[in-house]
Amino acid sequence: MNEQLLFNVVDLAGTFAFAISGATAARRCQLDLFGILAIAYITACGGGIARDVMIGAIPPAGLSDWRYLLTAVIAALFTIAAYPWVERLTYPVRLFDAMGLGLFAVYGAHKALLFGHNAEVAVLLGMVTAIGGGMARDVLLTRVSIVLQKEIYALAALAGAAMTVIGERLGWPPVWATWLPILFCFSLRFLSLHRHWNLPRFGRDPDA
Amino acid sequence: MNEQLLFNVVDLAGTFAFAISGATAARRCQLDLFGILAIAYITACGGGIARDVMIGAIPPAGLSDWRYLLTAVIAALFTIAAYPWVERLTYPVRLFDAMGLGLFAVYGAHKALLFGHNAEVAVLLGMVTAIGGGMARDVLLTRVSIVLQKEIYALAALAGAAMTVIGERLGWPPVWATWLPILFCFSLRFLSLHRHWNLPRFGRDPDA
Amino acid sequence: MNEQLLFNVVDLAGTFAFAISGATAARRCQLDLFGILAIAYITACGGGIARDVMIGAIPPAGLSDWRYLLTAVIAALFTIAAYPWVERLTYPVRLFDAMGLGLFAVYGAHKALLFGHNAEVAVLLGMVTAIGGGMARDVLLTRVSIVLQKEIYALAALAGAAMTVIGERLGWPPVWATWLPILFCFSLRFLSLHRHWNLPRFGRDPDA
Repeated sequence: MNEQLLFNVVDLAGTFAFAISGATAARRCQLDLFGILAIAYITACGGGIARDVMIGAIPPAGLSDWRYLLTAVIAALFTIAAYPWVERLTYPVRLFDAMGLGLFAVYGAHKALLFGHNAEVAVLLGMVTAIGGGMARDVLLTRVSIVLQKEIYALAALAGAAMTVIGERLGWPPVWATWLPILFCFSLRFLSLHRHWNLPRFGRDPDA
Repeated sequence: MNEQLLFNVVDLAGTFAFAISGATAARRCQLDLFGILAIAYITACGGGIARDVMIGAIPPAGLSDWRYLLTAVIAALFTIAAYPWVERLTYPVRLFDAMGLGLFAVYGAHKALLFGHNAEVAVLLGMVTAIGGGMARDVLLTRVSIVLQKEIYALAALAGAAMTVIGERLGWPPVWATWLPILFCFSLRFLSLHRHWNLPRFGRDPDA
Repeated sequence: MNEQLLFNVVDLAGTFAFAISGATAARRCQLDLFGILAIAYITACGGGIARDVMIGAIPPAGLSDWRYLLTAVIAALFTIAAYPWVERLTYPVRLFDAMGLGLFAVYGAHKALLFGHNAEVAVLLGMVTAIGGGMARDVLLTRVSIVLQKEIYALAALAGAAMTVIGERLGWPPVWATWLPILFCFSLRFLSLHRHWNLPRFGRDPDA
């Protein structure tokens, strides 16, 4: 499979997955039609736009490439139309979100390397690509981001981005360097969600 | 009228209008003098700064051109001095806000085209110029942005920005391509406010 | 002392100070380990990253230079390990925060001038470097930023940044142009905290 095409597919699939998760959250907060479309688009493209601004990819692809906007709008309208069904089935929504996480972390790290930045920038911005949109969604809906609170979410994105950088540096074949980190990030997120793996917290120390 | 001068006037008038709306909201939240000045400035210039960062206009005009800061500070001090009067008269505040919306949507779209970006970037960033400052204001005052919830606000900005792009692409005379979209956006916003036109919401479906 | 080295030390000391203040706030909000590390890093580097994006320093040093991330992580882990002690002693936390404020305001203004921007950009972005991370921290923890509400905080940063620009323009020796504004900003912040100096507020007018 052509490498460029591979990354385009990965990127649009992630956009669709994240837009559904954004639209679901926005609808639950009683936003109007525009609000749902906007939150879906920001959840899907916010992380990528932040990444592009920070790597100097001007204008950000999330703004200039109509396929992202179209994908987010279709995903939002689909969520609205199929809502009672989406609502009852929290499973596929979480599945989509975990897929989006892996897809975006890998694509974000890949794009940062492509623009000539170092490994640290690629790993951090891979993670930003994956969690930035969700954090923007939560800030706009005025809640402390779940990203910062529960289960292994950002850490899975960080692991996926790091594995991408390692793979590209070690010269793995593109298909492996792409899908292996995606699968790893997705699995880590999905397992942590189902087994309630959480990172340690430190509140209410008995000794405090 | 000179085209550049026309856009400068449009831009500063929008700055003044938005700074008043920001200062009013900040004062209502009991912020101190600096907080009121900061929120007024961010409401007025935040959208434009975000646009400039995304089109590669470095440094953003909202930071480098002292006229924006001065305009925002004057508007904020005016709001503080005339507050009892501003508070009682919600009408002119809404009027100013609707004017700022039209002025900024058109100026933002115009500047994005000027920097050589495509129609989608111009339309989206015209809208960001118009609603970005207000969204930043609401995020900083920790409330879900009214932009996403009620009446036709962002949609009016989107329509104004889209009309600007169409006008400039079709070669309308600058005065028409400027004032017609401003008037259209302003009217749409103002009518929707007075007639309580809202976009559909989807909460609490009876069938859910 | 070498000028470049001087600014590097100033910058990393500010990073450490702010990361502690971020980690303390995040821990109090019951965030998990990743959340604490992320908020510490964002509090420490968020203002500088915003500055770098707006002056065209791509990629932002906060992302590309591993020393910032490492400093923030060490400060966060130290805060977690020594928490009962940090919690009881609010004094050193405030001291660190006031130091970070001065250090960052001065370094931010200096870097903006170094990139060839004008005095207004340098003063505003010096302040953004100093208060931007704290504002991002408060937005992510969904509270109205203390920056906008109490005591002289942002104003002290503004004064420090302005004094840096004046000093560099008047050709003061680097050591003076660096440490004098830092000391001034720190003293202003620290005195206002201890003497409860507040800027005027305008709520609940008796005449309204």
